[in-house]
Amino acid sequence: MDSWVDGQPADALSLKDRGLAYGDGLFETIAVRGGQPLLLERHLSRLAHGCSRLAITADQELVRDELLAYAAALGEGVLKLILTRGDSLRGYAADPSAQARRILQGNPPAAYPAAHAEQGVRLFPCTTRLSKQPLLAGLKHLNRLEQVIARAEWQDTEHAEGLMLDQAGRVIEGVFSNLFLVRDGVLITADLKRCGVAGVMRAELLFQAESSGIPTQVSDITLEQLQWADEVFVCNSVYGVWPVRAYAALSWPVGPLTRKLQTIARALLDA
Amino acid sequence: MDSWVDGQPADALSLKDRGLAYGDGLFETIAVRGGQPLLLERHLSRLAHGCSRLAITADQELVRDELLAYAAALGEGVLKLILTRGDSLRGYAADPSAQARRILQGNPPAAYPAAHAEQGVRLFPCTTRLSKQPLLAGLKHLNRLEQVIARAEWQDTEHAEGLMLDQAGRVIEGVFSNLFLVRDGVLITADLKRCGVAGVMRAELLFQAESSGIPTQVSDITLEQLQWADEVFVCNSVYGVWPVRAYAALSWPVGPLTRKLQTIARALLDA
Repeated sequence: MDSWVDGQPADALSLKDRGLAYGDGLFETIAVRGGQPLLLERHLSRLAHGCSRLAITADQELVRDELLAYAAALGEGVLKLILTRGDSLRGYAADPSAQARRILQGNPPAAYPAAHAEQGVRLFPCTTRLSKQPLLAGLKHLNRLEQVIARAEWQDTEHAEGLMLDQAGRVIEGVFSNLFLVRDGVLITADLKRCGVAGVMRAELLFQAESSGIPTQVSDITLEQLQWADEVFVCNSVYGVWPVRAYAALSWPVGPLTRKLQTIARALLDA
Repeated sequence: MDSWVDGQPADALSLKDRGLAYGDGLFETIAVRGGQPLLLERHLSRLAHGCSRLAITADQELVRDELLAYAAALGEGVLKLILTRGDSLRGYAADPSAQARRILQGNPPAAYPAAHAEQGVRLFPCTTRLSKQPLLAGLKHLNRLEQVIARAEWQDTEHAEGLMLDQAGRVIEGVFSNLFLVRDGVLITADLKRCGVAGVMRAELLFQAESSGIPTQVSDITLEQLQWADEVFVCNSVYGVWPVRAYAALSWPVGPLTRKLQTIARALLDA
């Protein structure tokens, strides 16, 4: 399907766009089923939060309307929204009156092997560490060189995802997923105050767990805690939940809480 | 003047470009006088180094040829080269056979007040701190949200530049300049192994100083060292050298070594 730029079909972008010049913008990757963008409110909420943190001025109602219209036209697949600060002249200073540019791209449904969800995955031990930047932590912004470098660390198909640590060695997330572990019945995921992307599926699973009476914890995670976990899984808003079977010399069984949350995620993504 | 994309006049970019998606690329900002790109070898050398560090495949001879041809057509001004990893499908994994995309943009000569160079400038004390990322440190890559946020901290014209510290409080650089200080006749600039952009003018001034028998030092710089400096200046490859008169409550005279290096920079940029 054609891309849209500011609501119009387009296949090209202004060379003055600050998304290109500085990665000055945000993005969302949204599963679309039956013409509906899934987990839409959470995607819009994260986007609005990112705009607020980066002082990007965007008409959020217009963004919502365009997302709905584009998803309806796409039908089935994965929609990518890029929101940049718009054009500017040379130099880091932005035009405070600039309106954000909206770019919508459609892709076919993600085609991951069914075994990832069924039998679980092995995580590649990325040596690329996430840097600490509280001003950007949690945002799905366009400055993603760390993920690009980390993803280039492995080419084999044995590893469906990679695990990224921060520079202090804390366990943070996958390259394109968030990570959860289960220990003594508590669902634990990393605190993203220093780095990391606060995923929409991560937020939804925390909400669903709390609603089901499953204790949750958002905190720093050490490699030792990972080692002693009862269950480990990764998640995102496109594939849902993949159990993690192994990471380096560590291994885990696919556990019952992972299966329960996987079923919940699947229901949300099959909507 | 029209921009060029991969050697052809163009005003738009593929929406699949990884420069837009992830800031997956590098740039150079080059002063052009009399149809010549100034400090060209240093710009090309930094670019090649960046390509090597990021594993971006680019035909460096072709880049040089296009820079020369574009500068000749531009005549006078500031040329910006953006080199991205090219197009890709959705996802961080790059196509290893992809060739870099070359984008050339022409701008008029920079028009800074003459007083910046003559009387010196005041630096804004940016609260945005540079994060530590040795894998990217020194590169002029396209992930520049820290600079965007820092530059948005001040709008007044009293401050011509801002000073950025790293998260440990070390003195690193300006938002769009490198910083030098002089103490007891030694020219000192920050070690950029953790963060910062290794500027072309910084490299040239270190070389020129060493060639003139001026002792140089590349090391960590504390705020206390800045306070006790005899002279302070900032530099880049477009404006040359600006003496720094003040930063927060600190102030310095415009010193003789600053003037000497400013004269050298001016000669290089008036070539």
